[in-house]
Amino acid sequence: MANVRTIDIRSDTVTQPTQEMREAMLSAEVGDDVYGEDPTVNRLQAIAAEMFGKEDALFVPTGTMGNLISILAHCQERGSEVLLGNHSHIYIYEQGGIAQLGGVVPRPLRNLPDGTFDLEELRYLYNPGTDPHRTKSAVVAIENTICGKVIPIEFMAQVKKVANELNIPVHLDGARMFNAVTALNIEPTELTKHVDSLNVCLSKGLCAPVGSIIAGKKDFITRAKRLRKVLGGGMRQSGVLASPGIIALTKMSKRLQHDHNKAKKFGKALLELRPDVFKLNLDEIQTNMVLFGVDPANFLKNTSNANAVKEFCARMKKPTSDCPVSVELLAYDERNARAVFHNDVSDEDFDLIIIKLHHVLKE
Amino acid sequence: MANVRTIDIRSDTVTQPTQEMREAMLSAEVGDDVYGEDPTVNRLQAIAAEMFGKEDALFVPTGTMGNLISILAHCQERGSEVLLGNHSHIYIYEQGGIAQLGGVVPRPLRNLPDGTFDLEELRYLYNPGTDPHRTKSAVVAIENTICGKVIPIEFMAQVKKVANELNIPVHLDGARMFNAVTALNIEPTELTKHVDSLNVCLSKGLCAPVGSIIAGKKDFITRAKRLRKVLGGGMRQSGVLASPGIIALTKMSKRLQHDHNKAKKFGKALLELRPDVFKLNLDEIQTNMVLFGVDPANFLKNTSNANAVKEFCARMKKPTSDCPVSVELLAYDERNARAVFHNDVSDEDFDLIIIKLHHVLKE
Amino acid sequence: MANVRTIDIRSDTVTQPTQEMREAMLSAEVGDDVYGEDPTVNRLQAIAAEMFGKEDALFVPTGTMGNLISILAHCQERGSEVLLGNHSHIYIYEQGGIAQLGGVVPRPLRNLPDGTFDLEELRYLYNPGTDPHRTKSAVVAIENTICGKVIPIEFMAQVKKVANELNIPVHLDGARMFNAVTALNIEPTELTKHVDSLNVCLSKGLCAPVGSIIAGKKDFITRAKRLRKVLGGGMRQSGVLASPGIIALTKMSKRLQHDHNKAKKFGKALLELRPDVFKLNLDEIQTNMVLFGVDPANFLKNTSNANAVKEFCARMKKPTSDCPVSVELLAYDERNARAVFHNDVSDEDFDLIIIKLHHVLKE
Amino acid sequence: MANVRTIDIRSDTVTQPTQEMREAMLSAEVGDDVYGEDPTVNRLQAIAAEMFGKEDALFVPTGTMGNLISILAHCQERGSEVLLGNHSHIYIYEQGGIAQLGGVVPRPLRNLPDGTFDLEELRYLYNPGTDPHRTKSAVVAIENTICGKVIPIEFMAQVKKVANELNIPVHLDGARMFNAVTALNIEPTELTKHVDSLNVCLSKGLCAPVGSIIAGKKDFITRAKRLRKVLGGGMRQSGVLASPGIIALTKMSKRLQHDHNKAKKFGKALLELRPDVFKLNLDEIQTNMVLFGVDPANFLKNTSNANAVKEFCARMKKPTSDCPVSVELLAYDERNARAVFHNDVSDEDFDLIIIKLHHVLKE
Repeated sequence: MANVRTIDIRSDTVTQPTQEMREAMLSAEVGDDVYGEDPTVNRLQAIAAEMFGKEDALFVPTGTMGNLISILAHCQERGSEVLLGNHSHIYIYEQGGIAQLGGVVPRPLRNLPDGTFDLEELRYLYNPGTDPHRTKSAVVAIENTICGKVIPIEFMAQVKKVANELNIPVHLDGARMFNAVTALNIEPTELTKHVDSLNVCLSKGLCAPVGSIIAGKKDFITRAKRLRKVLGGGMRQSGVLASPGIIALTKMSKRLQHDHNKAKKFGKALLELRPDVFKLNLDEIQTNMVLFGVDPANFLKNTSNANAVKEFCARMKKPTSDCPVSVELLAYDERNARAVFHNDVSDEDFDLIIIKLHHVLKE
Repeated sequence: MANVRTIDIRSDTVTQPTQEMREAMLSAEVGDDVYGEDPTVNRLQAIAAEMFGKEDALFVPTGTMGNLISILAHCQERGSEVLLGNHSHIYIYEQGGIAQLGGVVPRPLRNLPDGTFDLEELRYLYNPGTDPHRTKSAVVAIENTICGKVIPIEFMAQVKKVANELNIPVHLDGARMFNAVTALNIEPTELTKHVDSLNVCLSKGLCAPVGSIIAGKKDFITRAKRLRKVLGGGMRQSGVLASPGIIALTKMSKRLQHDHNKAKKFGKALLELRPDVFKLNLDEIQTNMVLFGVDPANFLKNTSNANAVKEFCARMKKPTSDCPVSVELLAYDERNARAVFHNDVSDEDFDLIIIKLHHVLKE
Repeated sequence: MANVRTIDIRSDTVTQPTQEMREAMLSAEVGDDVYGEDPTVNRLQAIAAEMFGKEDALFVPTGTMGNLISILAHCQERGSEVLLGNHSHIYIYEQGGIAQLGGVVPRPLRNLPDGTFDLEELRYLYNPGTDPHRTKSAVVAIENTICGKVIPIEFMAQVKKVANELNIPVHLDGARMFNAVTALNIEPTELTKHVDSLNVCLSKGLCAPVGSIIAGKKDFITRAKRLRKVLGGGMRQSGVLASPGIIALTKMSKRLQHDHNKAKKFGKALLELRPDVFKLNLDEIQTNMVLFGVDPANFLKNTSNANAVKEFCARMKKPTSDCPVSVELLAYDERNARAVFHNDVSDEDFDLIIIKLHHVLKE
Repeated sequence: MANVRTIDIRSDTVTQPTQEMREAMLSAEVGDDVYGEDPTVNRLQAIAAEMFGKEDALFVPTGTMGNLISILAHCQERGSEVLLGNHSHIYIYEQGGIAQLGGVVPRPLRNLPDGTFDLEELRYLYNPGTDPHRTKSAVVAIENTICGKVIPIEFMAQVKKVANELNIPVHLDGARMFNAVTALNIEPTELTKHVDSLNVCLSKGLCAPVGSIIAGKKDFITRAKRLRKVLGGGMRQSGVLASPGIIALTKMSKRLQHDHNKAKKFGKALLELRPDVFKLNLDEIQTNMVLFGVDPANFLKNTSNANAVKEFCARMKKPTSDCPVSVELLAYDERNARAVFHNDVSDEDFDLIIIKLHHVLKE
């Protein structure tokens, strides 16, 4: 087939840098950031610190490094632990770097379906570090959005209150923080004021090719700089990455409502077309992600859940002569497929996705 | 008060070495165990390997080191994790040493009230190590007894079956393994055949002053020896500790039913005396431990749970002119007190404990 | 002063990306490299593997991370050590990351003035890992160029021969490997064939803004990918960095003789102008670096070595109305200043440096 | 041969506990030291603190753990390093535990023949921790005696002076500290006043079967207790080990001159008997160790150094019908054999050693 249109909605990590970003890279003023002399990196960091209401900020190559640096910077004593959700990215998807490399013990709290956790469990699991049998709780980490869901500001405020009582800081894995900010229709500082440090990805929905920002107090960033160096995250003329990063932060962060709208519309379409096949709850589509089950009995006879998911994804991906469109979804786990909407899905693309869906369901 | 009798039932870790043990220390043949030349240590290790049906065994200073060495010996690759119960000693009471010192990620499974966990959760949390985002599951650790409860042999067999399917070994924290063996009335190998490695404490209920044994395959013990050395557990004339250890293993391991009987009798006495005050379930007294709540409303007016527990323990401890007996219990947590019976609680001591209980409840 | 010309010769790390590199970034085809889907990154890696005669290659954000990943990938067992020069970058300038994060023990060999070390010392310090008191030697690391000096191919061959006898691999920190290749006038593989793995910086003399390449066997790169992820080096659309990286590797690597010529010429100028003030050995200028002492007695009366160096650098930096040129040098240590020549120093710039030198010496 | 007398002078680690020590174990009052309730351990620790003029002391299972705990307790920040001699036990014989388990970088200084090092090298290698490329020097470790040699008090005072200027503490690996104290004929505090923390072995020359003591400031010992626990060094009724430890410290520490005398006498005998065969310097026999070369040409024709050493040791070990004595020496390295004198070598044993030597040389 000559002209297949491919639409990749597996994740917002696949977003391409915009033309404006590429042109910014072309003309960015750069210097050696290991010496702190890259003016564009310095500008990005100043913008970020201001935007998040923190004393200082630091550019890092990835969100995984941003979280790793942040947790290690908070866990200064041997035998420290981090209290964090058992569905959180730091606990599951970062190869246990905090423990593997930094010796920090993860102490998971049970994430509830809405992404929060029980504050009583937080108090119960907290260890003051006085008993030599036990670790010392040194930081609480929360994630917003988590698995596409927005954690309420009230919950963040309550976590901060408990953490203050326990005298430990709160770190926010805000990889997709701007999706929460957009969904809640608030200023970033309304959210960041409840945490001591944060990590925000400039890639993902914000479209920068590479990079994340962490922010916090001056002494936190001082420690973070040493950690960035030892981890091998101290880059040279990184202004070429900071220049699209500035666009990500100041401009792309304001357009996420379009992605959220598409996600909602897609969820509705699934339910309208085949409520017997697709299992999802519209209320749970809070940002740009749609997680949905595919009923094996009604979609394919005689198959398992996992196979139904895989088969649905495979059919959406395969272009046909009738419908030369390839829609890439993620077979998220044994029960669910995932669609994530982002800047590279135009309105026309969205219509093609719905057309493809009709075709697949007709088969 | 001149002649106060003190009876310490906080834990079985307080047990004194027996006279026979002390005499064994006096006459033990010893050598430099760093060179493998201590005949008594070598004999203890041979006895243990035989008793547990394993290829080899190693004497270590403590159970904490025994577990730490075992987990690290199984987790040979960077980015490894151990699947273990969230109430387990390794996860809670060993200061996170596996992560802090060894970089191994703990991946806790939810312990059910009977000390087991859901095998489906085990399968679900297992990570094959193919995805670079994730850790690699390298070992499952179980504990028997756990919090005084006996895990059924059938469960151990099932864990081993799943672990075999996943191609990972099983480690047993058998600090109080002989209490399980006694309660189940089986030979040690009936239990140890379901695991690849184990740690058994010679102190605690078995009364040796110091030391634990780990056992497993030859190559496991070879790696364990290197780990024992780097941790600072390679002692010199440790035959002085191995000699009571041999008595612990071969003789003291056979007398634990006495402790279990006393625990059951104590639990019954509590319920008979004041069922409104003491909260416990007799079925849960499976070995030498009694965990029981103290109702604040019926024991003391106007107080919290925690205070009721503390106050009850304090009154049991305080000798009076009427009853010059001091019974030391453990205020285990905010809701429960704990009594643990062991070799140093004679039948006469037990009667005194009951007399003391009557006195305290009369106040 | 309106039109001061600033020439920065502190290091070749300050090099700006070329216009061609910037244009490559503008048009680079990119994808999500975490999924291995960035075609430009894949192309860079294929070019590098071919160029260095290795099975596979991997793009990483920095040379520090490249070395860290390489050493950890070679040191798979607990208690491993790396044998390396005591002047090497890994030992001194990477914050001890191999030990701090990876638990690998550095075992330094004494670097001789020419950057090599005594092969007998290598054999003597080697530990087979059989004695539990001792670490296990798992890799030898060499550096070429080291402190601007070229290590002879013969030495590399001898190290490889000894390492083969000891059955351990050799890693090359080839951050400035192309300076060695240029000075020796050989093909890269003539050098890389003597090592099992290598790290090459695309920034520094090669002018790419960000990034390094490591190369080695397939299984080495497989382990390296997991390590890159846990360290936070797995970037997204990193094709924007790989595109200038390809130019660095294939084009900029061929122009380094210009920098070497300028370095030699600069050294000669110093000696011709004031042999009483400047202390250096022309034979030691083998690549793009000039390290030279400044005699305090003859340059400034009544001052220390360190002050003489600092004062000389300060005067070279300060533009005057007579000579509105600012030349930035590095006060390398208490005895030496350093000049490094690179792509951003044009022939005109070089002449201005010499003019500035005359002015400073006239003062 | 029926009545072979075996005399083991490989090391003083082979010393048997004395009868008095064994009787002390028999009657020692003990408790659970994990709760701090072992009166004999507490007494040992109080005696040690007083004896070394430090605020507090802690009993640990081995010297390796004592050093490991001490270095980690001093290296509280990530990216710390210890400055220490390249011949020191911590650097060579403890499997790199400080790095492997604790992430602390060893930064070796060159030990001079007398066991000291160059103070200028100490100043030169010191890193203040301000440059993110570099580690932060957190402690200097010295060893006395080192390889049997006594480091002068003046040198210790100078190290302390430099360390004070650099604002870092000094740790003493005083495994055989009492041999230094004896050789120098001073009070222990004359030596320990120049260090902030120390580790002293109760085994080795002092004959206790197991254990070491560390001492230092109160907060150092507080951190040390947490580290001892996580390493698995928190033992239960360790009073059984502390009771011989008290005898070691207070009594056995005063008899070491006998061992030193025998060492000197043995060295003289070697030189008198065959100055052409044995290579040693009498001035270097400062304590209980004799390190001596065996000339291959004059002892055995046509053999290597290593073989000459091995063969000499083998002949000393092999009892013959003429001389039914087995003297165990250590083939220390390729050039040297080692004899160490200790409490289990009686005057009669010494005479037998000399007789054996005559027999071997006659062959």
